[in-house]
Amino acid sequence: MKTINQLIEKIEQAIHADNAQWVRQSPVNLYGPVAYGMSAGGKRIRPLLVLLGSQLFSDEVDKAIPVALAIEVFHNFTLLHDDIMDKADKRRGRLTVHRQYSENAAILSGDAMAFLAYQRLLQGPSESLNALASLFTQTALEVCEGQQFDMDFEHRIDVTTSEYLEMIRLKTAVLLACALKSGALVGGSDEDSANQVYQIGINLGIAFQLQDDLLDTFGNESEFGKSIGGDITANKKTYLLINALEMASPDQRKEIDAWLSKKEFDRQEKIEAVKEIFNSLNIKEKTKNLIQAYMQESIGLLAGLPVPSERKSDLEALCLKLAERIV
Amino acid sequence: MKTINQLIEKIEQAIHADNAQWVRQSPVNLYGPVAYGMSAGGKRIRPLLVLLGSQLFSDEVDKAIPVALAIEVFHNFTLLHDDIMDKADKRRGRLTVHRQYSENAAILSGDAMAFLAYQRLLQGPSESLNALASLFTQTALEVCEGQQFDMDFEHRIDVTTSEYLEMIRLKTAVLLACALKSGALVGGSDEDSANQVYQIGINLGIAFQLQDDLLDTFGNESEFGKSIGGDITANKKTYLLINALEMASPDQRKEIDAWLSKKEFDRQEKIEAVKEIFNSLNIKEKTKNLIQAYMQESIGLLAGLPVPSERKSDLEALCLKLAERIV
Repeated sequence: MKTINQLIEKIEQAIHADNAQWVRQSPVNLYGPVAYGMSAGGKRIRPLLVLLGSQLFSDEVDKAIPVALAIEVFHNFTLLHDDIMDKADKRRGRLTVHRQYSENAAILSGDAMAFLAYQRLLQGPSESLNALASLFTQTALEVCEGQQFDMDFEHRIDVTTSEYLEMIRLKTAVLLACALKSGALVGGSDEDSANQVYQIGINLGIAFQLQDDLLDTFGNESEFGKSIGGDITANKKTYLLINALEMASPDQRKEIDAWLSKKEFDRQEKIEAVKEIFNSLNIKEKTKNLIQAYMQESIGLLAGLPVPSERKSDLEALCLKLAERIV
Repeated sequence: MKTINQLIEKIEQAIHADNAQWVRQSPVNLYGPVAYGMSAGGKRIRPLLVLLGSQLFSDEVDKAIPVALAIEVFHNFTLLHDDIMDKADKRRGRLTVHRQYSENAAILSGDAMAFLAYQRLLQGPSESLNALASLFTQTALEVCEGQQFDMDFEHRIDVTTSEYLEMIRLKTAVLLACALKSGALVGGSDEDSANQVYQIGINLGIAFQLQDDLLDTFGNESEFGKSIGGDITANKKTYLLINALEMASPDQRKEIDAWLSKKEFDRQEKIEAVKEIFNSLNIKEKTKNLIQAYMQESIGLLAGLPVPSERKSDLEALCLKLAERIV
């Protein structure tokens, strides 16, 4: 068995090898932006989950590397296209692909990445190819659906918390679940265990996204890595805001609506005002409790998984670490 | 064996069934544009080639329907994204998806179509899944490469004819070849025959695109279905223009360059002037000869294919029909 650091090292090496090829590959205007997108770094959570999923059942993690790459390339494909749709200028401290190159480059290189992801997936073990490709394709479609719901929600003020949870399940959680389950399948898991692993990923993913919502408003700027209050400033329909809208008194509701419709405002003033309403409604506690519930569900599912406990400890540690980012 | 009309009927029914589902599917802002894009019609050449490829080897064409759909959905995915990149307002007489809905809709619904294509492909016969998925993925990447080269060529005036032929091989021919070969694989072809079928598709595809270039300048408006001279007006680096640039006398070259750099011009005047240079350089004849050469290559490969001649006649007729569109 490999440690988490050894697994991350393997992932970085594999990504580096791909990138070394892409920076040289013709047409350079297609593969250059691919390499640029892939070299932005990030936590590499998804490929790590593939390898940890595999290691639940097998020591041959190398067999899962192509699948780990497939999922990381797919994830970065979604970033290229989401950044166009969201008109985002920066990601991880650098210009986004459509700003660094052009919108057309980000569209077409993104498209190429979708197929490069499949190319890697097809290098996985042939005996699980059918299951892997079906799971991956289903997941990719669900991620598109999640992104669409997210964009639809921008124009609605009546989004319910259950609609929101379904949206983040699709947009974020299914890919983490797919990563874990794909690894499990490559590791030789039976179907029941693979499905249990998938549910671990779903719960982990929802907890992860809720935690992200919480950090965006209540986090510590230096630890969160981006400026606090972005969601409030942009009227983003997060779990926090949706909950506040559901629970607000008529007066509070009026105040939130006023902030949502204001075209010009002092950024800091808006953040503080909305946070104050959140605080009076106990939104932070409520969100923390929900995160805790999803985390406990995933930890419980992991505990019940019929594999030796030493195979689970790294995944358990990672789950706890992801959910315990400081608020 | 089924006639071409029976095969087209099968394809239209299958597309209609998919569309009937998509128009109802949530999120509607994702699947609505998919259905809109797929319902635009078109010649359905690619799915027809899948079924004809299958019928070269087998009577069970129904087994190839999911693969035929996969390739048609993929083709329409490329149209959605190409139309954004080319800023095209109309396609087949209707608004393009990004004009009818929005650019974001065309990006995301296009993405979904890439995965819907794989979803259909994975419903194909499981024994050929690995070969089908590899071929499809390789082809999809090559189509992206072809589109990139095409965009790169817009900013170059030194494109050679061999670069151009390689570009249209990637952008157009490989998908026709993939369609034919996929059908052959589903039909139970051995590897050698499948590769021969692929080469038929490559030659057919290049001939088809050259014919399109020719028709855009020398065609008959009512039969071509779009207005004549669009390529000349847009300075498109077609085989005709590249050849003219290669063969022009210094004076002719100066005249072409002048037309290429003119920002304001009378459309009809430019078309006539450039056509006159083409005529004096015998471009039309030269292009026709090249089309003929590719067609003869594909017909020759088809003749040499070790299957009964009655299985080939429909494909042969289609090849001849495609290449003999009136100039």
